[in-house]
Amino acid sequence: MALKGNCIVAQSGGPTAVINASACGVVQEAMKHKEIEGIYGAINGVLGILNEEIFDFREESPGDIEGLKYTPSAALGSCRYKLKSLEESREDYARIMEVFKAHNIRYFFYIGGNDSMDTADKITRLAKEMGYEMRVMGIPKTVDNDLAFTDHCPGYGSIAKYNAAAVMEAGLDTDAIYTSDTCTIYEAMGRNAGWIAAATALARRQEGDAPHLIYMPETPFTIEQFVKDCREVLSKFGRLFIVAGEGLKGKDGKYITAATGEFAKDSFGHVQLGGVADVLREIVEKQVKVKARFNKLGTCQREAMHFASKTDRDEAYLCGQMAVKHAVEEDITGKMVSLVRESDEPYKCTTGLVNLVDVANAEKPLPRECINEAGNFVTDDFIRYARPLIQGEVAVPIENGLPNYIRLKRKPIPKECPPELELHRGGVGKQVEKIGGNSYEDQKF
Amino acid sequence: MALKGNCIVAQSGGPTAVINASACGVVQEAMKHKEIEGIYGAINGVLGILNEEIFDFREESPGDIEGLKYTPSAALGSCRYKLKSLEESREDYARIMEVFKAHNIRYFFYIGGNDSMDTADKITRLAKEMGYEMRVMGIPKTVDNDLAFTDHCPGYGSIAKYNAAAVMEAGLDTDAIYTSDTCTIYEAMGRNAGWIAAATALARRQEGDAPHLIYMPETPFTIEQFVKDCREVLSKFGRLFIVAGEGLKGKDGKYITAATGEFAKDSFGHVQLGGVADVLREIVEKQVKVKARFNKLGTCQREAMHFASKTDRDEAYLCGQMAVKHAVEEDITGKMVSLVRESDEPYKCTTGLVNLVDVANAEKPLPRECINEAGNFVTDDFIRYARPLIQGEVAVPIENGLPNYIRLKRKPIPKECPPELELHRGGVGKQVEKIGGNSYEDQKF
Repeated sequence: MALKGNCIVAQSGGPTAVINASACGVVQEAMKHKEIEGIYGAINGVLGILNEEIFDFREESPGDIEGLKYTPSAALGSCRYKLKSLEESREDYARIMEVFKAHNIRYFFYIGGNDSMDTADKITRLAKEMGYEMRVMGIPKTVDNDLAFTDHCPGYGSIAKYNAAAVMEAGLDTDAIYTSDTCTIYEAMGRNAGWIAAATALARRQEGDAPHLIYMPETPFTIEQFVKDCREVLSKFGRLFIVAGEGLKGKDGKYITAATGEFAKDSFGHVQLGGVADVLREIVEKQVKVKARFNKLGTCQREAMHFASKTDRDEAYLCGQMAVKHAVEEDITGKMVSLVRESDEPYKCTTGLVNLVDVANAEKPLPRECINEAGNFVTDDFIRYARPLIQGEVAVPIENGLPNYIRLKRKPIPKECPPELELHRGGVGKQVEKIGGNSYEDQKF
Repeated sequence: MALKGNCIVAQSGGPTAVINASACGVVQEAMKHKEIEGIYGAINGVLGILNEEIFDFREESPGDIEGLKYTPSAALGSCRYKLKSLEESREDYARIMEVFKAHNIRYFFYIGGNDSMDTADKITRLAKEMGYEMRVMGIPKTVDNDLAFTDHCPGYGSIAKYNAAAVMEAGLDTDAIYTSDTCTIYEAMGRNAGWIAAATALARRQEGDAPHLIYMPETPFTIEQFVKDCREVLSKFGRLFIVAGEGLKGKDGKYITAATGEFAKDSFGHVQLGGVADVLREIVEKQVKVKARFNKLGTCQREAMHFASKTDRDEAYLCGQMAVKHAVEEDITGKMVSLVRESDEPYKCTTGLVNLVDVANAEKPLPRECINEAGNFVTDDFIRYARPLIQGEVAVPIENGLPNYIRLKRKPIPKECPPELELHRGGVGKQVEKIGGNSYEDQKF
């Protein structure tokens, strides 16, 4: 018999176009199971649990819950709060279990990347140690597509589709105005993996189409080869469209650019990147001697539900739904739902289960066989892999010419845990409320 | 009786999502008039005329011509080649007339901004002086929306709609992840006018929605006021979404940033901009003390047909169509088709005619009454003006998950002018062919 109690869902890390679809899958599936009583959401990921800022999905309208399917970004709120080992972040883990107990939370669904799977894994182990019966399930989410043990990640298909469309369109711009604006550089997200940059290759339908060159973090970047590549393209086509992953590294393994100053690292210790396109622009102007400009779509890339992949959205929903099914119907815990590709053509994909601990902190770079020998474009292998992921469009309701995305009410339910304990934690919640900002950087987690 | 002969259409300056719709309007209307024999296109704007690179629309498939209605960028090719006064650019103007005569071109339809209207005006005068009977019509095009004597410009509605959608989506990103990534800066196009930045205000549906602050080139930018504005928004909402026009200027009237180096100016002498968002990011991090990132969509903004305004597209087509009608049916010459708004609600817009010479080299900044007193947002007046321009979406055919834009064949027709004369011009055409790039910068026009 299934475990009875309340469930909570939380979203973590950088938002995506379809992370809400996963939450919707969790909530709509949970509603089908009478064992699940309260269906809660944590406001701003694990921070919402630590601060006991929790809302009840049964207070949200069915229309708004359904609207999560076409609303980008994290409607529950997200965060980049990093829990470390059980020893180092002891108080945080204790607090989480305290809040879970206070609200009789027996199911925890955590939508996030590898750091989040690490947190979920530790909660699983801690609950077991404490003899508190609960089910913990991870739901994959990352535009970076770098989670191991899953064919791909929800969020990736949409950023791939949108970037490919944007490169196609900006490529037509360069085609038209190349006599003066000869080179365009397009910066794609992807700190350590080139999956996103690689996907822009889908924009090319015939020879000469953008992109002409794609540089990914997996192959070392050298100025000499880059300048040579640029000259070759220019002599062939008279124009030049380059895509660069934000995390390009030199032969020494160091980023070719990194922001400096006090905000150069986020709370996970990741270097903040973003200047690659500008660095390449300068090289092109100074060494290749043609005018260059750059486009850096930044966060717009990962939120572009107005041109998102229906395949991706449907799979994101499915992952949320399957997490609940496995936990309730099969008493599964400590696992992440994975995507398992059965065939490319016709594309068929089902779900599987992997251990949270295996996914935690692992990274899956773009395999070498997806990158051409020169390290400046992708192979047909990659195209076969990526093409099915961008199929279909998500219907977004339009009002007054613009998308009509929903907003959850997120009315917090009454707190059950003594505030003394919260204060004991150093008042993290208070800082966040007060400045709404960088408190975690300052704390040097 | 209407003038008999061939017509030519050319596109100039920065492409837009709907400049091809205007070309389509010209071509499809021209096909209805038996007085018009050859319907030609100039490859890469006025360069195509100077180099006698001309193709015949009757060789293109009707499907491709129809496809211009949903294909962004300049399908004929564009350029930034600037003709100066009749005295200074004497050889160029002579060459243009020579090519027109050689191909019996009696109608010239020039789709472009104020510089192009200036060129068209000079051609009108020169033809008159030479006693060569022809009709010259300007068709407005600029995402900047800064042409005088027209309510708005084709291209503007689409960039307005897309930027508003992108700000809405990136705004949801900031809403979700503000506890670590507190501030997002969005850089909008617009060298001297704030029309594009202003339009992102349409994204705001309720208090607290992005954008929180919009800075436009029309009001002087001061760091003191900016920092104060940022702090106010942060204390109210805990997060901060800023839109900045690329051409922000200080009280001294100088750009707060300008690229330096050999490509700092384009061939029109315009300063190349693009660094505003990065400048603001640094101020926010150093003085407001919250983490900030920026999105700079660059040329993607003006080419986003995948989420363009149908109103804009239809008006662009209408302008092209009306240019032909006026020229053929009424013997009009030396005029630009303008857009005349009859009412806001319901929105009604017709076309008018203005003298090319009046439009040439004029600029229409955002009126003061469209900007709030603090100079950091727009007024309701502006919203009433802009809202109707972003209504409706353009249906784009999708193939394999991505837009299926058309490409014209553009097979050049045989040259009629002695190549000696072309060489006499200094071989400009050859340079363009050879390096496909910055030849015009080098020539210091």
